[in-house]
Amino acid sequence: MRDRITGDPPRLSATEAAREVGDDDTLLVSGFGSVGYPKVVPLALAESDRDRSLTVVSGGSVGPEIDDALVEAGALERRFPYQARATSQAAINDGRVAFHDRNISTLGDEVLYGDLADGDVAIIEALAVGPDWLIPTTSIGQTPAFVENADRLIVEVNRTVPRDVRAFHDVYRTGRPPNREPIPLRDPGGRIGTDRVTFAPESLVGVVESDRRDQPYEFRDPTADDRAIADALRTFLEAEVERSPLFRDSLRIQFGVGSLGNALMGALGEADLGDRELIYFGEVIQDGLLDLLDDGDLATASATSLALSAEGQDRLFEHVDRYAEDIVLRPADLSNSPTLIDRFGVVAVNSALEVDLFGHVNSTHVNGTRVLNGVGGSGDFNRNAALTVLALPATAADGDISRIVPMTPHVDHTEHDIDVVVTEQGVADLRGASPRETATALIENCAHPAYRDDLHEYLERGERRGGHIPHDIETALDWHVDR
Amino acid sequence: MRDRITGDPPRLSATEAAREVGDDDTLLVSGFGSVGYPKVVPLALAESDRDRSLTVVSGGSVGPEIDDALVEAGALERRFPYQARATSQAAINDGRVAFHDRNISTLGDEVLYGDLADGDVAIIEALAVGPDWLIPTTSIGQTPAFVENADRLIVEVNRTVPRDVRAFHDVYRTGRPPNREPIPLRDPGGRIGTDRVTFAPESLVGVVESDRRDQPYEFRDPTADDRAIADALRTFLEAEVERSPLFRDSLRIQFGVGSLGNALMGALGEADLGDRELIYFGEVIQDGLLDLLDDGDLATASATSLALSAEGQDRLFEHVDRYAEDIVLRPADLSNSPTLIDRFGVVAVNSALEVDLFGHVNSTHVNGTRVLNGVGGSGDFNRNAALTVLALPATAADGDISRIVPMTPHVDHTEHDIDVVVTEQGVADLRGASPRETATALIENCAHPAYRDDLHEYLERGERRGGHIPHDIETALDWHVDR
Repeated sequence: MRDRITGDPPRLSATEAAREVGDDDTLLVSGFGSVGYPKVVPLALAESDRDRSLTVVSGGSVGPEIDDALVEAGALERRFPYQARATSQAAINDGRVAFHDRNISTLGDEVLYGDLADGDVAIIEALAVGPDWLIPTTSIGQTPAFVENADRLIVEVNRTVPRDVRAFHDVYRTGRPPNREPIPLRDPGGRIGTDRVTFAPESLVGVVESDRRDQPYEFRDPTADDRAIADALRTFLEAEVERSPLFRDSLRIQFGVGSLGNALMGALGEADLGDRELIYFGEVIQDGLLDLLDDGDLATASATSLALSAEGQDRLFEHVDRYAEDIVLRPADLSNSPTLIDRFGVVAVNSALEVDLFGHVNSTHVNGTRVLNGVGGSGDFNRNAALTVLALPATAADGDISRIVPMTPHVDHTEHDIDVVVTEQGVADLRGASPRETATALIENCAHPAYRDDLHEYLERGERRGGHIPHDIETALDWHVDR
Repeated sequence: MRDRITGDPPRLSATEAAREVGDDDTLLVSGFGSVGYPKVVPLALAESDRDRSLTVVSGGSVGPEIDDALVEAGALERRFPYQARATSQAAINDGRVAFHDRNISTLGDEVLYGDLADGDVAIIEALAVGPDWLIPTTSIGQTPAFVENADRLIVEVNRTVPRDVRAFHDVYRTGRPPNREPIPLRDPGGRIGTDRVTFAPESLVGVVESDRRDQPYEFRDPTADDRAIADALRTFLEAEVERSPLFRDSLRIQFGVGSLGNALMGALGEADLGDRELIYFGEVIQDGLLDLLDDGDLATASATSLALSAEGQDRLFEHVDRYAEDIVLRPADLSNSPTLIDRFGVVAVNSALEVDLFGHVNSTHVNGTRVLNGVGGSGDFNRNAALTVLALPATAADGDISRIVPMTPHVDHTEHDIDVVVTEQGVADLRGASPRETATALIENCAHPAYRDDLHEYLERGERRGGHIPHDIETALDWHVDR
């Protein structure tokens, strides 16, 4: 294989590459889980003195070179679909940047068919590039769809990422409707593709060298609540794998991104699963999974991103060969594929801001108005999993806010998609429950004791009003007014 | 093939069969789109003088023999997941019957794995039955999963349905996670199964003869609003098939159940689709589709139910052979399969009660409290379609209520799932729009003129509050208080 450019395309400096970007262009950038995104070209775009109104589409979250620098430069007009930086969030909530939030699994298609945005330039971080191929770095995300859709392609070759990281990659394309073929993946750790993404040679505008590293994750130490949630989840799962025929031989599981998710992954190592294999089928590889692999508690892990701490990166990069036996990175439309999540019978474990008495979940908008990151892949997993668990602390703001509320002012996941709620207080199994039963279980098993009386009072008020979902519409959002 | 019972299982009268049902049993009944459900055994259950607390699970809506008679007899304690009768709705909204609403596509799995309910007795309407097989009548729904899960099976053989209706059936089973195979269906009209459902011979308790016909649908004549919505949808689709590469050769489409859906189907015959084939991939076959087939405007239709008017039934039953070339009935987990909807690039067209300024849709709960039918398959199609259209009149109650509201008090489909809204006022294309842009487009293109000023005022109030979704939480639900 060639992994150096021998003739065309031209090598460009970041500044030269930035000149190839039109002032109002739509940029499709690699990156997922804040890793594997382009860095030096976005910085050069931010530093140029042109008056730009860019649209930036990423597969998932990216780093400060995009969501801080471009925002601060006033160069970002529109942003899809997920971002996790305070700077971009402030700009979106001020109305300075237009934002549109989408589910991860279908984003590539929506770009590819011009439904969401038509890509002018794809800017992709790669380990290596050839005339019609590139090898992604630490995430794959929507890179295959993005290079297929964009008119022009700029590749940032990042030499700080070990070349053998390619051993994780399994890039497979599903073809286009109406002749899209079934995905031939037979097990979560299987491989059906190659290590590279192909593109039309004529689209390649230039290659830029980059030496900027991904900004590593920082996980906080697990709190007492994290540990209590993890214990409750572990106890529930130990009983569930005994009960359900779906888990006779193995438990396939996904956890959401972040410190709580990482802590939950860690706790799974202590679970008594009998002889069952533990398999991860999710979006991101976090440090907790490396621990499980090191301890021999995890058979295989499939994701689209290596979202690790600095320590985790070092550990992985030093032993790529060993980890590559058990870790696979796929494009995000496969890591989050509704049909793969269904076929493998995955248990989804995700967190949220709040859940209401009838099982509706707000995972994105504080008080229904101020967006945080975006829905990400939580919708893909919550909807299609064999079993969907919502794991969250019962309160926020040091106990001043209950995360169990009468009505959420924003809904990302409906009552139809949530099976079980776990807080540090306990577990509410909502399967087959009527709304009244759901409310009672959430109040008694999951809400913090300090809020139970108020929640019971709301439920009684609703019951006097009547209806299948006994809301008292007049006071339903009182907990969110002037919060 | 045998289509008469020759020895065991015993033939039972309906009353004898009802005696085989325990007082607190969970019944899994055939039926979808109010057809193909068991009739004489449920009536006998309602007429018996036992004190029953039954749970009834159906694949979709069923008729008065279940959702009126069992409710009126006080024999129904719990009901999953979709019902469309005034009697059952009243009982659910009064809290007399516990109800839990699920998406159609995964209901069979949820029953099969004991997540929702464990079936004691499956009561299935059939054209014919043998020692380990039965042939469904006018719907397939969740019958395969139900007979697999239930301990005991009672079959109602209905002689009023022509035997050759079996020519429509294509029963295929997907296997169980984690070894569930990809669905090998390659085109919407293809066939991969057989005409029959198999079961464990020892589960068959008895066979009951039935001569009760399905209660046929009654469609109202299209209103002026229906026609205006259909015109707006047709114009939009004519442009969209030209624009999108997904529709180069064909348009695959689904319509929701009901008079509006039926009227929209009809209008599609007048659309100028160039040389493209028109293909239906949805839940139910309604009369409008027969018209399109008769006129040569429709190539093929795939569904799980023949939800026809009396005239439509007569037309179909007289020419089963001719229609069976183009119509296929599948189990509901295939008719509504997320991956098939995705792979075929289906355009979903569904209605709802109301939509809010930011694209969230309430399709089930009047004022957030009183349930109508249930979410049905609308979630399966809205989430997984290549293009999702919400089609509804701008107002209800003779114009007294706007269906475009500041905030819906119940959410079945989120902003992430709705691409385009069509009312008789016009079309709002929400793809790639920020919440502010969504609100403006809905007000100006879709809301009834009488409500535009009030909606603008709400939006301005929200914008003064700020945030990505500019709600004014304090007044967000004012339109729903004491309605």
